[in-house]
Amino acid sequence: MTSLDALEDFARRDWAEYNGDGTVRVALVGAGWFTREWALPGFQRADHTDPTVVVDTRPERAERLADEHGLMPLTPEQFHDGAARDEYDAVYVCTPNATHLPYVERAAGFGKDILCEKPMEASLDRASELVEIAADAGVTLLIGYRMHTDPVLRRAKELIEAGTIGDVVQVHANMSQRMLAELDGDPADQWRLDPDLAGGGAMMDIGIYPLNTTRFVLGADPVQVSASTTAVHEEFDAVEEQVAVRATYEGGVPVLFTASHDAYHDSFLRVTGTEGVIVLDPAFFEREDRDMAIRIDGERIDVDVTNVHQLEEEFAYFADCLLSGREPYPDGEHGLVDMRAIEAIYESAETDETVRIENAVV
Amino acid sequence: MTSLDALEDFARRDWAEYNGDGTVRVALVGAGWFTREWALPGFQRADHTDPTVVVDTRPERAERLADEHGLMPLTPEQFHDGAARDEYDAVYVCTPNATHLPYVERAAGFGKDILCEKPMEASLDRASELVEIAADAGVTLLIGYRMHTDPVLRRAKELIEAGTIGDVVQVHANMSQRMLAELDGDPADQWRLDPDLAGGGAMMDIGIYPLNTTRFVLGADPVQVSASTTAVHEEFDAVEEQVAVRATYEGGVPVLFTASHDAYHDSFLRVTGTEGVIVLDPAFFEREDRDMAIRIDGERIDVDVTNVHQLEEEFAYFADCLLSGREPYPDGEHGLVDMRAIEAIYESAETDETVRIENAVV
Repeated sequence: MTSLDALEDFARRDWAEYNGDGTVRVALVGAGWFTREWALPGFQRADHTDPTVVVDTRPERAERLADEHGLMPLTPEQFHDGAARDEYDAVYVCTPNATHLPYVERAAGFGKDILCEKPMEASLDRASELVEIAADAGVTLLIGYRMHTDPVLRRAKELIEAGTIGDVVQVHANMSQRMLAELDGDPADQWRLDPDLAGGGAMMDIGIYPLNTTRFVLGADPVQVSASTTAVHEEFDAVEEQVAVRATYEGGVPVLFTASHDAYHDSFLRVTGTEGVIVLDPAFFEREDRDMAIRIDGERIDVDVTNVHQLEEEFAYFADCLLSGREPYPDGEHGLVDMRAIEAIYESAETDETVRIENAVV
Repeated sequence: MTSLDALEDFARRDWAEYNGDGTVRVALVGAGWFTREWALPGFQRADHTDPTVVVDTRPERAERLADEHGLMPLTPEQFHDGAARDEYDAVYVCTPNATHLPYVERAAGFGKDILCEKPMEASLDRASELVEIAADAGVTLLIGYRMHTDPVLRRAKELIEAGTIGDVVQVHANMSQRMLAELDGDPADQWRLDPDLAGGGAMMDIGIYPLNTTRFVLGADPVQVSASTTAVHEEFDAVEEQVAVRATYEGGVPVLFTASHDAYHDSFLRVTGTEGVIVLDPAFFEREDRDMAIRIDGERIDVDVTNVHQLEEEFAYFADCLLSGREPYPDGEHGLVDMRAIEAIYESAETDETVRIENAVV
């Protein structure tokens, strides 16, 4: 057994438990570009999931998607009134951050299980309320951290756990994109610039990838953060365009990451250990193949990775959890750790002080 | 003219001005492994430099090197007494940090020009005194930032200045090594663990590479820093084993860097702009070929770099400055900016606050 054994059968679903032929019927809540281009195809591809309903504030958008894919279109009002509630077993919430809570509340009231996109909500308070509601209703809540079921990340995590790079010493990561340029295609996504709807800017939207993915691969949570936020363009008058974070994770590991809405489309995660380095580059974008390199014993190994449809994997995992009757790993409490960290990051950027994270989960 | 024109004739010495046949005779002060393995061969290879004298606290070490290479060996006492002062025109000071000042003082008193290794001294106060002494004596002082004359860094700087990656948005960098393991070969290097001799640990010794090289390629200095320092091994009871820094450079650019004396041998510099990314990986070690990749327009370009002997380049530049009668770029004032930043970094690690750098040079 060598320390690279984790790379065998690269795309294996080590999380799969369910062997039956059940199906989870899903209502898509929110029909923006991410739902149309990634989530809907993901549900169509995934084992044991079947998209049946689509909800959107813009009826024509819901109807067009419904027509094309044989779904039942609903307005938010119809959804809230319980229309077609026998047509779905779970909801996938992919709307502006600050609107997750009412959808989750209603779905939980109907006894539906929930897959909620991250960030969970626009603030820690609202996210906490969201988790409480799901718990009280006894429904399953999975937060949509698609990196957790990407084999590139799962194998990286296994390599680290197997000691391939020794003890982890430090992490660097980035996620950046040209948001203003990319927004042109879908002006409705302008909600990301509205603090009431988004809760924040680059940190909430994409900074959560390096923050959370590092938690996943290290199996450790942030304990303190120091951050700066900046904005250059006038569109970012109310939320940050860029964030730079120096965090310390459990075990004393420095984790340095950046996120920017006006930088070249780029993402990487670089974990340095005492005995080696793992570089994922690109690391985070669903629309770009991920890549992995390992450096150990003075050698560089370019890993022959298998890229998957990230949403297919995530949704198959969701169905697997539901149908096998177990709780998912990135549950509401897991998501709250990010929300606490994000609050601390904003506080640090405001005060210029290093902020400790009070973390009830640890 | 494309934005990649800077890569033509990769190793060109764009700094070269001197066309004569003069020679700078150099006294090597300090005969540790870096002098023996890199600096002496560098002086032997470089145009217009000729090593003639070697000074060391251990006579047998100086004598052995002198025998092998036709140099004149001196004890520190002999050097301080002015022995063989007609045999050299300049000194190369490569001793423990806290001993730079007396050598520089003496050499300046003899009217010798000075190439002093970085970090310049063990503290900002002593470094300031060193600069003053050289200025008062009217001798040239170059601080040994070997990255400045490495073509990989010069071409990266030119690409950035030419706008190849647009406006610079953020920088990540690291330099790490297994110091304790590597010390085995030369226990005299243990001075790096002694705060009186070294002035600090990983930050002073190798963190200065990401700190300073970023200054060089961006043409911008740090204005504020937030940092943490850690130590795991008992050998690091008095200086830091690891440092993690979140700095902001002029122009508001976040620069995140790490340095560790107990991590896998690794170095990189990653500059993200609005229109592209430049990755140098490896970036900093003299004993490892540097490499450059550029990402622009959705493409990845692996640059066919020319690796040079870094010390040969640095010393040829030193001689070129002296013989053409001009001041070098990384002079004493340049070095003091690093010393101020390092003091601020230690202060931040102590106070958990973001520290602004009072920078007389800006």
